[in-house]
Amino acid sequence: MRADVHRFSLSEPSDVSGLRDAIERGHVDPARIVCVIGKTHGNGLVNDYTRGYLSISLARLIGSHLNVEAEAVLARVPFIFSGGVEGVLSPHYSVFTVDPQADRGAGKSLAVGVAFTPELTPDQIGVQAQIDLTAAAVRQAMARAQIADATDVHLVQVKGPAFGAADIQSAVRSGKTCASGTPGGLMACGRAASALGVGLALDEIALRDATADRVLSDFRLYSSAASISAGTEVRCNEVVVLGMSERWGGELMIDHEPLQDAIDLGGVLRLVRRMGFDADPQVAQSDSGRIRSAFVKCEPQRDGTIRGRMHTMLNDGDMDAQRHIRGAVGGMVAGVLGDTALFVSGGAEHQGPYGGGLIALIAEKAAV
Amino acid sequence: MRADVHRFSLSEPSDVSGLRDAIERGHVDPARIVCVIGKTHGNGLVNDYTRGYLSISLARLIGSHLNVEAEAVLARVPFIFSGGVEGVLSPHYSVFTVDPQADRGAGKSLAVGVAFTPELTPDQIGVQAQIDLTAAAVRQAMARAQIADATDVHLVQVKGPAFGAADIQSAVRSGKTCASGTPGGLMACGRAASALGVGLALDEIALRDATADRVLSDFRLYSSAASISAGTEVRCNEVVVLGMSERWGGELMIDHEPLQDAIDLGGVLRLVRRMGFDADPQVAQSDSGRIRSAFVKCEPQRDGTIRGRMHTMLNDGDMDAQRHIRGAVGGMVAGVLGDTALFVSGGAEHQGPYGGGLIALIAEKAAV
Amino acid sequence: MRADVHRFSLSEPSDVSGLRDAIERGHVDPARIVCVIGKTHGNGLVNDYTRGYLSISLARLIGSHLNVEAEAVLARVPFIFSGGVEGVLSPHYSVFTVDPQADRGAGKSLAVGVAFTPELTPDQIGVQAQIDLTAAAVRQAMARAQIADATDVHLVQVKGPAFGAADIQSAVRSGKTCASGTPGGLMACGRAASALGVGLALDEIALRDATADRVLSDFRLYSSAASISAGTEVRCNEVVVLGMSERWGGELMIDHEPLQDAIDLGGVLRLVRRMGFDADPQVAQSDSGRIRSAFVKCEPQRDGTIRGRMHTMLNDGDMDAQRHIRGAVGGMVAGVLGDTALFVSGGAEHQGPYGGGLIALIAEKAAV
Amino acid sequence: MRADVHRFSLSEPSDVSGLRDAIERGHVDPARIVCVIGKTHGNGLVNDYTRGYLSISLARLIGSHLNVEAEAVLARVPFIFSGGVEGVLSPHYSVFTVDPQADRGAGKSLAVGVAFTPELTPDQIGVQAQIDLTAAAVRQAMARAQIADATDVHLVQVKGPAFGAADIQSAVRSGKTCASGTPGGLMACGRAASALGVGLALDEIALRDATADRVLSDFRLYSSAASISAGTEVRCNEVVVLGMSERWGGELMIDHEPLQDAIDLGGVLRLVRRMGFDADPQVAQSDSGRIRSAFVKCEPQRDGTIRGRMHTMLNDGDMDAQRHIRGAVGGMVAGVLGDTALFVSGGAEHQGPYGGGLIALIAEKAAV
Repeated sequence: MRADVHRFSLSEPSDVSGLRDAIERGHVDPARIVCVIGKTHGNGLVNDYTRGYLSISLARLIGSHLNVEAEAVLARVPFIFSGGVEGVLSPHYSVFTVDPQADRGAGKSLAVGVAFTPELTPDQIGVQAQIDLTAAAVRQAMARAQIADATDVHLVQVKGPAFGAADIQSAVRSGKTCASGTPGGLMACGRAASALGVGLALDEIALRDATADRVLSDFRLYSSAASISAGTEVRCNEVVVLGMSERWGGELMIDHEPLQDAIDLGGVLRLVRRMGFDADPQVAQSDSGRIRSAFVKCEPQRDGTIRGRMHTMLNDGDMDAQRHIRGAVGGMVAGVLGDTALFVSGGAEHQGPYGGGLIALIAEKAAV
Repeated sequence: MRADVHRFSLSEPSDVSGLRDAIERGHVDPARIVCVIGKTHGNGLVNDYTRGYLSISLARLIGSHLNVEAEAVLARVPFIFSGGVEGVLSPHYSVFTVDPQADRGAGKSLAVGVAFTPELTPDQIGVQAQIDLTAAAVRQAMARAQIADATDVHLVQVKGPAFGAADIQSAVRSGKTCASGTPGGLMACGRAASALGVGLALDEIALRDATADRVLSDFRLYSSAASISAGTEVRCNEVVVLGMSERWGGELMIDHEPLQDAIDLGGVLRLVRRMGFDADPQVAQSDSGRIRSAFVKCEPQRDGTIRGRMHTMLNDGDMDAQRHIRGAVGGMVAGVLGDTALFVSGGAEHQGPYGGGLIALIAEKAAV
Repeated sequence: MRADVHRFSLSEPSDVSGLRDAIERGHVDPARIVCVIGKTHGNGLVNDYTRGYLSISLARLIGSHLNVEAEAVLARVPFIFSGGVEGVLSPHYSVFTVDPQADRGAGKSLAVGVAFTPELTPDQIGVQAQIDLTAAAVRQAMARAQIADATDVHLVQVKGPAFGAADIQSAVRSGKTCASGTPGGLMACGRAASALGVGLALDEIALRDATADRVLSDFRLYSSAASISAGTEVRCNEVVVLGMSERWGGELMIDHEPLQDAIDLGGVLRLVRRMGFDADPQVAQSDSGRIRSAFVKCEPQRDGTIRGRMHTMLNDGDMDAQRHIRGAVGGMVAGVLGDTALFVSGGAEHQGPYGGGLIALIAEKAAV
Repeated sequence: MRADVHRFSLSEPSDVSGLRDAIERGHVDPARIVCVIGKTHGNGLVNDYTRGYLSISLARLIGSHLNVEAEAVLARVPFIFSGGVEGVLSPHYSVFTVDPQADRGAGKSLAVGVAFTPELTPDQIGVQAQIDLTAAAVRQAMARAQIADATDVHLVQVKGPAFGAADIQSAVRSGKTCASGTPGGLMACGRAASALGVGLALDEIALRDATADRVLSDFRLYSSAASISAGTEVRCNEVVVLGMSERWGGELMIDHEPLQDAIDLGGVLRLVRRMGFDADPQVAQSDSGRIRSAFVKCEPQRDGTIRGRMHTMLNDGDMDAQRHIRGAVGGMVAGVLGDTALFVSGGAEHQGPYGGGLIALIAEKAAV
C-alpha cells in the first residue's frame, strides 16, 4: 500500500479547480481518495458554513468522476475542514489517496486509516459517550492503517459535530442534559472529550483518567497527536489516523512534536530539523518543496498569560480567541516553513500541553 | 547625555501602576521622561479610544509628580500608542528618559530626540503638507538627538492624527479636499505620507520622489526606519527619533532591519544575531533580559498573496486586515524573542519593503 | 399569467427542506420557478460564501426534479441572496413562480420579469458600462413582465458581481482601471452604478444624469424601486422586475415606499396602511398572514449623523457599517410587520433618498 | 426636592464639552449632580474601556469645578455607562441633578435615590451575596428617594463589576468558586443576580424565589424595572432608583413598560401614549422635545427564535449577541421616539419578560 498527499489552493470555498485539474491530468485517481483535510475561509466557529460548502463542492466533483451521488461520497470519505485562515494563512485542502496495490518500502512510510463513530446528539457531546466512541474509532482506524504500535501514530485528525443554539435548546427541552448551554461552549467540550478519547486509544491517557469529569478540567491529560475540529456540517466523529508503518511504501513520512506554549519556536525547529530539513531557521527554499502538509493545534492559554505576560485573547468581545491564536501561531510556523498553506486549528483542549499544542508534518523523505 | 528605557505591563488602559511604582521607588525621574511608546488593548483602528485613555492616565500621573496639569504634560511629552494586541501580544508601554548630565560613553549609545509638526487638518493628511512637515520635524528631532548621520537613525516613530466620518464630511462640506473619504482610508494616507517624509529626511527617498502623487502608489519608495501610527487622540505628527550617537552614553543600543515580507523570519534572526543575542532560533532565556523594547511594522501584502499563495486579510469583512497582520507577525517575532510585549503595528505603507515592514530593537549592549 | 411567492425558512445555508417539501407536496412546480430571493447567514460582505452555498444547494434540488444539472438551473434562474441577518432578522428565501396558463384578473396583479446583463469584469463595475447594461436589462425584464408603465414597477432586485483583492489587483496589473481599489469599495461602486441604471430605465433619473461621474457623488439621484446586492458568486447583473400589471392574475399585490432616513417609521406605516393592513402600529396577528415577502434597503447616513445626532456606524473597525444598519432598520420594520423573515439589505447607494432607502412589500390582496 | 435631567451628546469618550458648557452657563450646578447614566462608543463587553474613560473624564471636569480630586467624585457619584451604540444609536450621557431646596409639586414628580453595595469579588458575582446586597442597596436608594411604594419605582439602574480572564483564574487558583469561568459568562451571571435582587426589593419576586439557583435558570422570575449593566471599571454595585414621589417637585415624570419580545412595538407605543405623547406612530417632532432620557433593556431570546422564527444572534462568532440585539431594538425604539440618543442595553437576564425586556422614559409632563 502507498499513501499520497496532494495539496491544492482554494480561492473560495467552492473552488475545486485544483483537484479537478489533477484528476483530469491523471495525477489523482478519484477512486483512491480516502480523506480530505483543509482550511477554509470562514471564522472556524459555529456559524462557519464554508466547511460544508467545500465538502459538497468536492463531493460533487468526486462523485461526478465516479458516477455516484455527492451524498454517497460524503458518506464514505471524511472531509475534515477547519475554518479560519487568519493572518498569513492560506486556504487549501490536502487530498489523501491510497494505492492498495503498491509494494511496501524499505523501512516505514506514511500510513492512513479512516473510521467513523455513530451519529452523536447534542447530549452526547463532551461526555463519556464521545470519549469512548472516539477511542473505539481511533483503534479501528489504526487497524485499517495497519499501525500496531501507538507510538507510530503521529496525527489523529478528528472532525466532530457542532450544534447551534436552537439544537441545544431543543435537546434541553426534551429532557436531555448538554455539557454546555452555549454553541461555542459545547464545541469546546466536544473537542476536549474527543481528545481524551484519542489519548486513551494511543495509551497517552490511562483508562481511569479518560473520564467525563476530566473534560476541560484536568489539563495535565493530553494527547500530543490529537487534532480535533468541530462543525455543524458533520453529525459523527470522523477519524483519520496518520502514522508510519512498515506495511506501507512510498516516499512520504510524517512526524510530530508537542508545542509547550504559543511561542514555542524551538518545538517547531526541533521537528523540522529531526525530519532532515535545511532550516536556518526558515526552511531553505530549495528544501521547502518537500513539505506536503502541516498540521498545527494551538490555544489561548487559559490563565490569560504567556510566560508570565498578559494576553488579551480571552477578553476580546470583537474577535474570538480562536481567531487570535490561529493567526499568531500560524505566523510563527509559517515563518519556519516558509509556507502559508498550513492547517492551523485553535481549540487545543487536551491536544498537546496546556497553553500549547502540537505540530505534525508530512513531507517527502529526505534524500539519503 | 544618557537615554534609558523602562518597559511596563498594562493590565488595562488606565493601569499606570508600573510607572507609579518606578517613580515612587526612584527608578524613574518623572522630570526626565521625554516620550512614551506603547501598545494598548483597542482595535488600533479609528474607534480605538484606549490610546487616548492611557495618554490621559499617564499624563495625570506624571503631572501629579511634577505639580503640573495633565494637559501640560500631554503638550510636552509625545505619548505614542498603537492599539491592537492580537494573538500573543501583550499590552505594555515603554517610558524613555534622558539624563542630560550623564557623560558620553566609549562608542555610540542610544540617542533620543523629539519634535512636533504644527496641527494638521483633515485636508492636510496624506498630501504634500504632511510629507514636508514630517520631514522637517524629523530633522529637528535628529538635531535634538545630536545625530548627524542619517544612517545612525534606526527608528523614527511617528504618531499622527486620524479623523472620523463626521470630521471628514465637515471638511468636505467646507470646500476642502481630503485624500480619502473614509476614516480608515484617510488613516492609511496619513501613515503613507508621513513615511515618505521620514524617508526624505533620512535620505532614503529623493526629494523629487517625496511627492503626494507617490503616496500609496509607488511602493518602491520606502523608509526602513519609519514606523507610523495614527489615532484620533492627537492633532499633529508627534515625532520621536531613536538612533545611535557618540554624544550619548549608557548601556543601551538600537538597531533595525527591514522585513521583506510577512514571514521573513530570516530578517528577524539577522537582527538579533547582529546585536549579539544567543538565539537558536529563540533568544535564550538567559539572554532575553537584555531586550528593552521591540518595534515592528508590517502589512497585508496588497496583491492578496504572500510568496505566491493567497491570503484572505484584505477580503475579511469581520476582522480588519490590520488585526490579521499584527497577530501573525507578532506571533513570529515573539517566537524569536521569547517575549510578547512587542510594539507591533500594522499599516506599513512605505515603511519597509512592499508587503513586508521592519523591526527595530533596543537592547542592553552585549557584554564584551 | 399568474405569479406566486412562497417563503421558506433557512436553518443553515444548505437547508432546502422547505422547498423540497413544497415540491414533494405539489405546492410548488419546480419548472415554474423564475427566481429566488433571500437572506442568508453570512456577513453580507465580500467574504460571505453563504450566498453561493444556498444557490448551489437550491440549484441541485431544482435540477434533480427537472433532471438537469445544477449548473443549468443556475444559468437560467436568478438566485439573489443577500447575506446578513443581524439582530432579529431570520434567514429565509422566497421562491417566485409563474403560471403562464393562468387567466388575467380583474385589476392589476403581481407581475415578474427576469433578465441578465452580459458578464462584467472588475473594470466594468461602477462605471458607465454597468449603468447602461443594467438599464437595458431592466427594460428587457419589464417587457417580459408585460409592464408598460414604469410607475407600475415597485421593485427591481439586482444581484451583481463582487471581486476580491486578488481579482482587482490582477485587473490593475493587466492595465485595467477599477472604480475602487478595495473589495468593499468596488462592491459599493457596483451597487451605485446599477441603481443609476435602474433609475434610468424607470425614468426616475434623466439620461444626462445617469453618468459614471455621478456614481457615489450626487446622492440627489436615486431610484426608489431599486434594490441592489453584490456578491462574488455571480458574474453578471441578474435583474428581477416586480410590479403590477393588468395582464397578470392572482391574489398577490406589491407596493413600495421610500424611507427618508434610517428611523422613518412613518414611511413603513404609510405603506402597510396603504396596502390595507390593520396596523396599530404593529400589523395585527390576524392580518400578518397576508405578508408574503418584504424587501428593505437602507444605509448608514454618510455624514455620520441621523437627524442631527451622531451615529458611529462608519467609524467602527470591528463591525461593518452594513451590519449595523441592517440590524437597526430590520428591527424597526420587524416591529411594524410583526415578522422577522425580511429581506433587509444595506448599501442603499442611490436606492431611495440619501441616508434612507426603501421598503417594498408583497402581500395577498386585502379582502374587499 | 426637585430632580432634573440634562442629556448631552458625546463625540468621543473623553468629550465632556456638553456638561462643561452647561456648568459654565449656569444650567447645571456641579455640586448637585447625583448620578450620570450614558451610552459610550465601545462594544459593551468585557474589553470595553470607553466606560471608564468617560467616567474619569467627567470626574475630572466635575472635580475641577468643586475643587476636589477626580477620585473623590468617582467615589460619590455613580457613573453608569453602558457601551455599545450599534446601528442608529447615538453616544450620549444624562446628568441627574437634585435641588434639595425646591418645593414639592402638586401630584408626583421624578424622584432619584442612589446607593452602593460593598465591593464585590469575582466569587461573589452571580450568587446569593450579590442578590441580597443589591436588594439592600435598592431599599436604601428608595428611602433616599423618599419613595415608599415599590409600584412608584420605574427604573432601577445598576452598574456592577465585570472581571477579565486573569481575575477569574486568579480567584479560582486561590480556592474560590466563580459562577462562570469565562468573562462574558460571569458578566451575565452578575446581571442576572442583580436583577433578582432588584425584583426582591420591589416585591416583584418573592423571598423564597430570590435564590442563587434561580439565576439564569428560572426566567419566569423578573423585575420589569431593573436595568443592569456590568463593566470592569466599577468594583461594587452602583444603584440608582428612579421613580415618582409626592415629596418631589418639578416638571419631569418617569414611567415604564415591559417588552414582551424583541419586536414588541406595541409595548413601546403603549408607554408613549400613556405618557401623553402625540405618536402616529412616531412621536411628533413638535412633541419630541419633551423626551429627556430613554432606557431600554433587551436580549436575544435564548431558544434561538422570535415568534417561532429562527434568529442567528447566539450562533454568530463574529458579532456578539449583545451587539446584535441592541442594534435591532434600538432601531425599533428610535423609530417610535424619533430620537437616537437612547440608553439601550443588552443582557436583560431577569429584566423584563424572557426574550423581551423593558423600556422606561423620562419626559417633561404633558401640558394640561
